[in-house]
Amino acid sequence: MSESTPDWLHQRALISPERLAVAAGGERLSFGELEGRVNGVAGWLRAQGVGQGDRVALLLRNGLPFVTLVHALSRVGAILVPLNIRLTPAEVRWQIADVGARLLIYDSFSAATALKAVNDLADIRAVSVEDLSSSPGPSPSRFQLDAPHSILYTSGTTGQPKGAVLTYGNHWWSAVGSALNLGLQADDRWLACLPFFHVGGLAILLRSVIYGHPVVVHESFDPVAVNRAIDEEGITLISMVATMLQRTLDARGERPYPPTLRCILLGGGPASEALLEECARRGVPAAQTYGLTEAASQVATLAPEEALRKLGSVGKPLMMTEVRIERDGVPVEAGGEAGEIVIRGPTVTPGYDGRPEANAESFHEGWFRTGDIGYLDSEGYLYVLDRRDDVILSGGENVYPAEVESVLRAHPAVEDAGVIGVADERWGQAPVAFVVLRETIAESELKAFCAGRLARYKVPRQIRVVEALPRNASGKLLRRKLAVDSAG
Amino acid sequence: MSESTPDWLHQRALISPERLAVAAGGERLSFGELEGRVNGVAGWLRAQGVGQGDRVALLLRNGLPFVTLVHALSRVGAILVPLNIRLTPAEVRWQIADVGARLLIYDSFSAATALKAVNDLADIRAVSVEDLSSSPGPSPSRFQLDAPHSILYTSGTTGQPKGAVLTYGNHWWSAVGSALNLGLQADDRWLACLPFFHVGGLAILLRSVIYGHPVVVHESFDPVAVNRAIDEEGITLISMVATMLQRTLDARGERPYPPTLRCILLGGGPASEALLEECARRGVPAAQTYGLTEAASQVATLAPEEALRKLGSVGKPLMMTEVRIERDGVPVEAGGEAGEIVIRGPTVTPGYDGRPEANAESFHEGWFRTGDIGYLDSEGYLYVLDRRDDVILSGGENVYPAEVESVLRAHPAVEDAGVIGVADERWGQAPVAFVVLRETIAESELKAFCAGRLARYKVPRQIRVVEALPRNASGKLLRRKLAVDSAG
Repeated sequence: MSESTPDWLHQRALISPERLAVAAGGERLSFGELEGRVNGVAGWLRAQGVGQGDRVALLLRNGLPFVTLVHALSRVGAILVPLNIRLTPAEVRWQIADVGARLLIYDSFSAATALKAVNDLADIRAVSVEDLSSSPGPSPSRFQLDAPHSILYTSGTTGQPKGAVLTYGNHWWSAVGSALNLGLQADDRWLACLPFFHVGGLAILLRSVIYGHPVVVHESFDPVAVNRAIDEEGITLISMVATMLQRTLDARGERPYPPTLRCILLGGGPASEALLEECARRGVPAAQTYGLTEAASQVATLAPEEALRKLGSVGKPLMMTEVRIERDGVPVEAGGEAGEIVIRGPTVTPGYDGRPEANAESFHEGWFRTGDIGYLDSEGYLYVLDRRDDVILSGGENVYPAEVESVLRAHPAVEDAGVIGVADERWGQAPVAFVVLRETIAESELKAFCAGRLARYKVPRQIRVVEALPRNASGKLLRRKLAVDSAG
Repeated sequence: MSESTPDWLHQRALISPERLAVAAGGERLSFGELEGRVNGVAGWLRAQGVGQGDRVALLLRNGLPFVTLVHALSRVGAILVPLNIRLTPAEVRWQIADVGARLLIYDSFSAATALKAVNDLADIRAVSVEDLSSSPGPSPSRFQLDAPHSILYTSGTTGQPKGAVLTYGNHWWSAVGSALNLGLQADDRWLACLPFFHVGGLAILLRSVIYGHPVVVHESFDPVAVNRAIDEEGITLISMVATMLQRTLDARGERPYPPTLRCILLGGGPASEALLEECARRGVPAAQTYGLTEAASQVATLAPEEALRKLGSVGKPLMMTEVRIERDGVPVEAGGEAGEIVIRGPTVTPGYDGRPEANAESFHEGWFRTGDIGYLDSEGYLYVLDRRDDVILSGGENVYPAEVESVLRAHPAVEDAGVIGVADERWGQAPVAFVVLRETIAESELKAFCAGRLARYKVPRQIRVVEALPRNASGKLLRRKLAVDSAG
């Protein structure tokens, strides 16, 4: 039998019932109150027939209902499937069908998408979060650490999203590894302005009950509100991506941050040197992080005090995580040579849900191939050179070129398509497409075609017509060449 | 396969090679330097033929050799058996034979005891720690969390010590649970003035590498040196027993402690109300703790700020530890009724080494019966009323009456014997014996008989002659009645 623990929230409510658990949209709940709320929602879920192993998809903005549902799903043994609220109905439909969700819970923001997505799908019901009610829930049972807690969709080379299974153990070890890395202070208070459907946001919720620290929830990212929360609510920790941090700094002007703010965990892709230097100059404690959905968030983190000495590095691995660099499957020594970043440790997903080929490709001897390219310097600091599979990092969202290309190629006028990321002042990167046409068609028409099938952040900013795309002898699209050619 | 982690010290040395790891007797080693030292000692151990699963006993005072050996034994897959340096040769001999140690490593303080103990025992060699040398060690391998890390001897009703097996996982979860309880600060520095052969001392060593925090090692307890270390070395955490804390406070006078000292973990038995009130008055951050060898140290801890509101309580359980009270094997609700303290969680020993009957008695359905008596108040705070089996807590050492009684009864002049603890200003408690004699014998002669067979702290302070001992109908000695009668 695998290691097990008490239900996290239940145990936390026994230990510190009166401590603040969550502040969201004007409501403030202690751990004891949250436990009561969760118990009621768990009872409601059970009354809906949701039980052990059932998959329940959420299409929700950040807020108390999301927080409550995360813990209530655990209470009834169900598996959380948090969906990106920016997906189109077709994308949501594909993911809920793929995961075999039996319930989709949506809020007013996503109602139209949700109802279109489930339309005529068998075996799944869509329920508005406003229709949740409360009834006495089941008694908390123990969490088996190797049981699946959640399934988070992420894309890849194929352009088809895959659901990464994260176990209770993955999340637990991630919380512990992060605490050993960042420390744990009695006055800690984490601001959640990243969406909870991303692993970096979800991790904050779980850490909150494991650590016994409050989480302050913002419904969406607003740089002015972030600055206010830092000043007025004693925020000590924030998870952000580089574009969010830049906008937060811009909104603040030169007014210094209070010493209570001890760490901004900066993930979702590389921060520019200019941003890191601005942080150092202004005394903003930014910690560059390399994280993955498949590793329940943090893999490696650079301490803020090393930000300038190791400019551009994402630091050292978490205590229980091993990182190595491989070339053609063979590990290379630390000290410079670049290759694929390969990781191992208790935060790493047991695999993608229902994807035996992808799993066979991604795992070997307990190591997970990230697909990202990087190197370890002679002191063992990790540098990430290229995110996996030419992924485009746009405002904290991952855009997979292959996914956009396959939509473009589905248009009858398009013979071939290649997508790359180009620098964008606000979002870090934005997708740009290159197409070979069969017949003339307006750029706006192709964009509209994409917008009907892809979340807005995936729709190419520009679509340029070319004679041919650079491909190698075996026909593989050379996106890096496309980038160089387009810049030249 | 069970969960595994990288070798803790090796990973810590990769992550923070230059951070101070240990300060002991004028030497200061970084984690990188400690790793080098440990590698050399691991090589030496291997050259001695010590390998996977071998049991190696240490009879050492606190110091760098102890620290190095703890990690080096892990590196070669051997099991650490730390022995109490106050044991007599006969007691050491019994324990090393019982555990099947193949090597006993001693220092100058324990040389005579060690050599007498191993005299003519087959299959075990005694080696002086001064004869340790260095040769290149094996590469670090992963730690399986369910593999035994150490065996610590503890006594019980039978009077015969039993070796509690502690796995890597027990120690790991203890470190994590303690961090979630006490927090983790970048400037943390733990003072080890408890012996490393006790679980509370050993835990500090393992936490040091897991947390990446320095440990300042004192060879033995010296209240003046403790006060100096707090003032001059930035000590933030100390583990102590009540008598040590009282002597430390007495030695200091009224001079306040610096704010860097954030927690004194107070274990090993109840602290007096007078001491707790003195701590509150003087702003000394003492955290009463209930710990057990069998649970890799902390089970429950009371936060210093609650010391007066919950006077005498040992607080709430660690995050992953469950505590309940049972009467006749049936759990009782929190809120007042006293019974046996029963615990469950990942820090709890898998069992006593080679003691199937004791294990059958101590475990049921994953719960461990501590033998201690206590209750949970309506808010879930634990109070310990009586330590198990009338154990006498003398200056941080456990004295088991049954063990002392069986020595007394072995004397030809003694027909029956009963041992209890009486209040002692310096040590908290001291053992006192009541004997029924067959023939007249001087108290001094009986004490000398005990001193030849028992560590000094176990030898009765007084031996009183009585007509008969109070026993119940089935012949069980009523020690509590003995205590009342002797007081009256």
